[in-house]
Amino acid sequence: MAKRSLPLSKVYGLLEPGPVVLLTTAHKGKANIMAMSWHTMMEFEPPLVGCVISGRDYSFEALTKTRQCVLNIPTVELAEQVVGCGNSSGRTVDKFESFGLTPLPAAQVEPPLIAECYANLECRVADTRLVNRYNFFVLEVLQAWIDRGVKEPRTLHHRGRGAFMVAGETIKLPSKMK
Amino acid sequence: MAKRSLPLSKVYGLLEPGPVVLLTTAHKGKANIMAMSWHTMMEFEPPLVGCVISGRDYSFEALTKTRQCVLNIPTVELAEQVVGCGNSSGRTVDKFESFGLTPLPAAQVEPPLIAECYANLECRVADTRLVNRYNFFVLEVLQAWIDRGVKEPRTLHHRGRGAFMVAGETIKLPSKMK
Repeated sequence: MAKRSLPLSKVYGLLEPGPVVLLTTAHKGKANIMAMSWHTMMEFEPPLVGCVISGRDYSFEALTKTRQCVLNIPTVELAEQVVGCGNSSGRTVDKFESFGLTPLPAAQVEPPLIAECYANLECRVADTRLVNRYNFFVLEVLQAWIDRGVKEPRTLHHRGRGAFMVAGETIKLPSKMK
Repeated sequence: MAKRSLPLSKVYGLLEPGPVVLLTTAHKGKANIMAMSWHTMMEFEPPLVGCVISGRDYSFEALTKTRQCVLNIPTVELAEQVVGCGNSSGRTVDKFESFGLTPLPAAQVEPPLIAECYANLECRVADTRLVNRYNFFVLEVLQAWIDRGVKEPRTLHHRGRGAFMVAGETIKLPSKMK
């Protein structure tokens, strides 16, 4: 799977539909993965992404200390790995090893890309003003990668308690909206 | 379509998958509708929702002044109305009338529910600290309504420029996650 750089102006189209993402961090020589659904675009370019990461999550400390992460977007083939990552903690489990996921070096940040995900967004933490009250981080996407062979990604969209809506068909309507 | 009250603890399951919503406001005796995709859950209960509303949107002033709105969730049957709302402004258009949508009185806020949407979330503005920098509002859901006849809502998920992914099948995996 050869990934190519995606212009930053196109990143919003990947996250706006609301897919589950796998967030990778690296801290004290250890990479970790968490599943996350509470995110939103906040700006087109440079792309800003707001997201909530609980203080109970092992990734919270890594993100706070290193201020770097990667948002990896899985498709339905990775549903079991997504649930596995969501139901275990990096405190006790090496998630790359446990779930057979492949770390790849990122270009601009320390945390690894997940090779099996069709898109990867390298991010830095841009604003922490709402972290104390809501665990809400504002991330800036520095570099985006995509497998251009995937035209209509069958992303996962969490309905709660292990139920996921799988992305269906795409329809196109005449629109002036970005 | 008889709607029933949905417990607030279940609201996250409606927004977490990332559907386009139609946000209604009411200001100076006029109700308005805007299409919005940039939102995220921030807390389970009481449900908090973060969202970005551009200062160029007519709804921005109404929301800032009245601090009330309703998030209405449309399904694919309303795709044309969603795009219509997104491509016009409440400054010049009565969107309820133009797009044949039916306003219904809400229980706890002034802005109307949209009858044709399968779910409606009555909200108040809870936090405006990131409005100046990002046009980011934190909303609290006060009351939720749902058409219980809709089991797997075919919601719309914007990929950009009028392309929408339509919600596909739901899969269920064993999970401890909420």
